[in-house]
Amino acid sequence: MTEIKVLLFDVFGTVVDWRTSIAREVESILSEEIQTKITPEDFADQWRALYEPSMEEIRSGRRGYTRLDDLHAESLRKILAKNNVHLSAEKQLWLVHAWHRLAPWPDSISGLTRLKNKFVIAPLSNGNISLLMEMAKNIGLPWDAILGAEVVQTYKPLPAAYLKTADILGVQPSQCMLVAAHNFDLHAAQGCGFKTGFVRRSTEHGSHQSTDLTPSGNWSYHSESITDLADQLHC
Amino acid sequence: MTEIKVLLFDVFGTVVDWRTSIAREVESILSEEIQTKITPEDFADQWRALYEPSMEEIRSGRRGYTRLDDLHAESLRKILAKNNVHLSAEKQLWLVHAWHRLAPWPDSISGLTRLKNKFVIAPLSNGNISLLMEMAKNIGLPWDAILGAEVVQTYKPLPAAYLKTADILGVQPSQCMLVAAHNFDLHAAQGCGFKTGFVRRSTEHGSHQSTDLTPSGNWSYHSESITDLADQLHC
Repeated sequence: MTEIKVLLFDVFGTVVDWRTSIAREVESILSEEIQTKITPEDFADQWRALYEPSMEEIRSGRRGYTRLDDLHAESLRKILAKNNVHLSAEKQLWLVHAWHRLAPWPDSISGLTRLKNKFVIAPLSNGNISLLMEMAKNIGLPWDAILGAEVVQTYKPLPAAYLKTADILGVQPSQCMLVAAHNFDLHAAQGCGFKTGFVRRSTEHGSHQSTDLTPSGNWSYHSESITDLADQLHC
Repeated sequence: MTEIKVLLFDVFGTVVDWRTSIAREVESILSEEIQTKITPEDFADQWRALYEPSMEEIRSGRRGYTRLDDLHAESLRKILAKNNVHLSAEKQLWLVHAWHRLAPWPDSISGLTRLKNKFVIAPLSNGNISLLMEMAKNIGLPWDAILGAEVVQTYKPLPAAYLKTADILGVQPSQCMLVAAHNFDLHAAQGCGFKTGFVRRSTEHGSHQSTDLTPSGNWSYHSESITDLADQLHC
């Protein structure tokens, strides 16, 4: 087995708990501004449901690379209109930047800090650079570099997102491991020659989550947390 | 005066002492491998003298973006040929990667660590991502992100190098300050609307240095070190 040199992390869901964080920020806006029947969790879910379709426009080539901040802003406008919620431009921008203020899972900081002693660690996220950098600065994610969609100008799970990242780092794909809570992402990375580390995040989508509860492929590592992964990698 | 949010640093010469570091690594190769009359310092200077011309091919549009690692490798081959020095491909690669192993000036780590508490700090260097990332990991430069030529696909002092970096960070040029030991770099940054911080590095080119000993423009700050700059910025 080729030696792993670089651990590249999916971020939304794998390192940070986007749903709880977004719902909390939405709640603070909904309660002070407007009357609506939608719950903060439903609002977060509806917003996130437009995430993959918005990137598909870019992946398909129908649209040039566009930052996730901009896609988040467009999707937010759709969700607000759908739910008859009116928010000022300033409040909308504040909510778009809520994605820069997501909270980590309890094991993320300690796990990454341990892994950093032995490996290069970096995000390989669809988030844009300023989103990932501000998130890291807010909560203390100790990345060695901020990588991802904006650096390679394309979105996962297109192969170029993984392969260009390895090339930038000056390593072979087999020297990289993608760490993710999502089987589709690991599948794409494995197809590019990456090692794969599954992290179970069974409440990413709430207490009734039905997806990604178990590894669906032959992944290099199966873990219950990033600290568990650090244990398995002897960090 | 607009509030400064981001400090972007020139790296070679400003944060790290490239000449002493490269000369030391060249010396270890020259002494064990070959007989030559060239001194390690002359070798380092000859190599560095090809730095600007090699980037000029890209800046002029005659050549597409090419990583500094590759430009360093091409320039090294020229210097070896000029001085009748024969080195294996493996040793050449090792020397090219000496630019990933440069040592900091004595004040760099403590200065950056203090500045990071108040500002976003990142390199805005012509070095490629893996060069800057490995350098940071080797010596503990606490960057918030790894930015520079490879992220924006162009070389300083072209305006796009500064302006695209500000855009990626989601800030106005006037919210950025370039920190550099080189007046030409500060001049270009100022032309893009950046604030400017001069750091005097009077031995970057050795004890007989004649350039960049004093600020040649109306820069926002004049400092003797990065810790001096941290003092002036109340960090």
